Amino acid sequence: MKNLKGACMFAQSGGPTSVINASAAGVFIEALSRAEITSVYGAAHGIKGVLDEVFYDIGAEDTAELMLLKNTPSSALGSVRYKLANPEEDDADYKRILEVFAKYNIRYFFYNGGNDSMDTCNKISKYLLAHGYECNVIGVPKTIDNDLNGTDHCPGYGSAAKYVATTMMELSLDARVYDTKQVTIVEVMGRNAGWLTAASALASYAGHGPDLIYLPELPFDIDKFVQDVKRTLLGADKKCIVALSEGIKTKDGQYVAEAIESAKPAKKDSFGHAQLGGVASVLGELIKEKLNCKVRAIEFNLMQRCAAHLASGVDVEEAFQAGVQAVKAACSGETDKMVVFERDPSSSEYKCIYKLVPLEIAANIEKTVPLTWITEQGTGLSSDFVDYALPLIQKSSSAPLENGLPRFARLKKVRV
Amino acid sequence: MKNLKGACMFAQSGGPTSVINASAAGVFIEALSRAEITSVYGAAHGIKGVLDEVFYDIGAEDTAELMLLKNTPSSALGSVRYKLANPEEDDADYKRILEVFAKYNIRYFFYNGGNDSMDTCNKISKYLLAHGYECNVIGVPKTIDNDLNGTDHCPGYGSAAKYVATTMMELSLDARVYDTKQVTIVEVMGRNAGWLTAASALASYAGHGPDLIYLPELPFDIDKFVQDVKRTLLGADKKCIVALSEGIKTKDGQYVAEAIESAKPAKKDSFGHAQLGGVASVLGELIKEKLNCKVRAIEFNLMQRCAAHLASGVDVEEAFQAGVQAVKAACSGETDKMVVFERDPSSSEYKCIYKLVPLEIAANIEKTVPLTWITEQGTGLSSDFVDYALPLIQKSSSAPLENGLPRFARLKKVRV
Repeated sequence: MKNLKGACMFAQSGGPTSVINASAAGVFIEALSRAEITSVYGAAHGIKGVLDEVFYDIGAEDTAELMLLKNTPSSALGSVRYKLANPEEDDADYKRILEVFAKYNIRYFFYNGGNDSMDTCNKISKYLLAHGYECNVIGVPKTIDNDLNGTDHCPGYGSAAKYVATTMMELSLDARVYDTKQVTIVEVMGRNAGWLTAASALASYAGHGPDLIYLPELPFDIDKFVQDVKRTLLGADKKCIVALSEGIKTKDGQYVAEAIESAKPAKKDSFGHAQLGGVASVLGELIKEKLNCKVRAIEFNLMQRCAAHLASGVDVEEAFQAGVQAVKAACSGETDKMVVFERDPSSSEYKCIYKLVPLEIAANIEKTVPLTWITEQGTGLSSDFVDYALPLIQKSSSAPLENGLPRFARLKKVRV
Repeated sequence: MKNLKGACMFAQSGGPTSVINASAAGVFIEALSRAEITSVYGAAHGIKGVLDEVFYDIGAEDTAELMLLKNTPSSALGSVRYKLANPEEDDADYKRILEVFAKYNIRYFFYNGGNDSMDTCNKISKYLLAHGYECNVIGVPKTIDNDLNGTDHCPGYGSAAKYVATTMMELSLDARVYDTKQVTIVEVMGRNAGWLTAASALASYAGHGPDLIYLPELPFDIDKFVQDVKRTLLGADKKCIVALSEGIKTKDGQYVAEAIESAKPAKKDSFGHAQLGGVASVLGELIKEKLNCKVRAIEFNLMQRCAAHLASGVDVEEAFQAGVQAVKAACSGETDKMVVFERDPSSSEYKCIYKLVPLEIAANIEKTVPLTWITEQGTGLSSDFVDYALPLIQKSSSAPLENGLPRFARLKKVRV
């Protein structure tokens, strides 16, 4: 619906990234400049903010602060993990959304998130369409997991990949410093898609990286793993550095940490619940036992998704543009779509072009690393992956420093 | 001994830091420029390289690569944790060192490390003096722990502190993103001195930091901790972010993780040894049990000591100068000393001046955070600490990028 006049609502959903606020900045800056958009609102905690009528007037913010969002990690408006019911089973939330949208004359809706969020966005979009409420709905992608379908890559991935690759290089130097046998196991986020763990291969190609890389795309064989590590330790420096996805599973589909823990007796703690432990630390214990050597288990934990000081300049700019393009598309009458990235095939240099795909293409489908990009031994990535990922981690972009520390955006958050 | 002509030996010892190689660069660049120094050697793996006669000819390296050492983390020559015996009890190692020094006419010896390494350096220095072997021995300090006696601060601390403060700011934003009760516990290195954990207070002063900070300088009361967290969760955002030192102990002097684990039954694992677990994860489990909320335990692990991409420019330059000053001092006839840092009292701006203290002043004495800098509740740092630490994290300094990733030094390591 072109030339639709009304307010716009933007919301952030799912796990935050280093650049999700860059997309917010793109949406806000562009939306504030459009004549057809009468007010720009930001919902607190995703769709919950719409349901609860808690949202902020973005027009009351200083432009300089909105621009600082480009380099401010985490979700500035707050996020949520809330799954909408199927409207055929329970349409209470949808009715409420329609009510709120009508009350504030919201005619533009932008939802920023990953697979689950695109599912939410898709459901809302379809409900509004079915109920004849005129509103242009555009999904803005984000996820460090890089697993959204229909797009070459996702905003958030480049920065997380740059963190993983850079940190793996630094760790690789640190973990090789003593003249003794030592195994270092690094756990990287990614339940079903190994894109982020694969980024550690960029460090290996740069000369300082892991020796072994395990993605959830392939079944994980615990015995083979022990043998892989043992063989690597035979090298001159007696070191083995491993990068693996938190989501690696055995051929039976069981998470590796669970598979190892469940095979042990008496593993309940004093509170009666099963012992916690990331897969890196569980495998580390196993290696220590089997190979009798020093082992260090490391989790990149939240740092890999919030290390905005090490963001990829390419990623920040593309995330910002994803927001801008979403607003432009909506204002030109597009709805029920998600912004996606393609590589310009006519350019010899990497160049990102922005397109749209129907929301249902992205919703709930996880895109994994092509198996042909995993080396034959199942412990490395081919140069095809490097060619794919390297352009995404280029350039630097970070917040201005104030007293040597980042100056992040400070929003007033004026309630509507 | 002035105008002593001979070779120089440099070695790195103890845990690496982001800037220990900057000191190496300082020693190498300065030593290579001195007429009285006939050859510049770098020992592999600290004093072990001397004992085993494994060292490299630094004169064979390209100057550009030596300068890249300024921004290359970890110990480029390899490190070691090896404690020399008391020479009165066993002088075999000392005899061997003397033999190697005489064989290669080593008249300048620079040992780069923390407390233990300064003890090694001190023992060697005293042994050489007692045996009439003319050699100028200078210790070059390093430690992220900042616990060396006789110096205002230590090379390596500023960069690790900048990592802790910056990362705590990013985490603090990420960990407050959902509208639910959540506790985040971050474990920072430091067995007996809380300097590095204290750096998280810089984040709090910058507006995005931990709510509670626990240093090993004060006994840790587990019950009070639970109450502190509970009270903090009553705040509007229902979040509590904690930073604590790995070395926190109960009033009985027991490590907190041990104290909690030992109070539980059946805590041996299937291999019969006590369960591992950092103090953050053990306290996290306790909080989850007591307060029934989402908890995330995070360890900064090796990243805090090798994140050279986030090094403090002030620290890098001071670490480099520590190396330069060590060589200058040795060449002017000084021996049996360590380079130390002082703040220029005549300057209103922060300005570091380089001095020397006898090695025995630094050896084996740990300098801890003044108790007067810890707030009354025992969960924060006063502005005195901020005034002390803030100048040390200023400016940025990192390796040049190649394909978006750091280009670290590549040494030829030509064996002598």
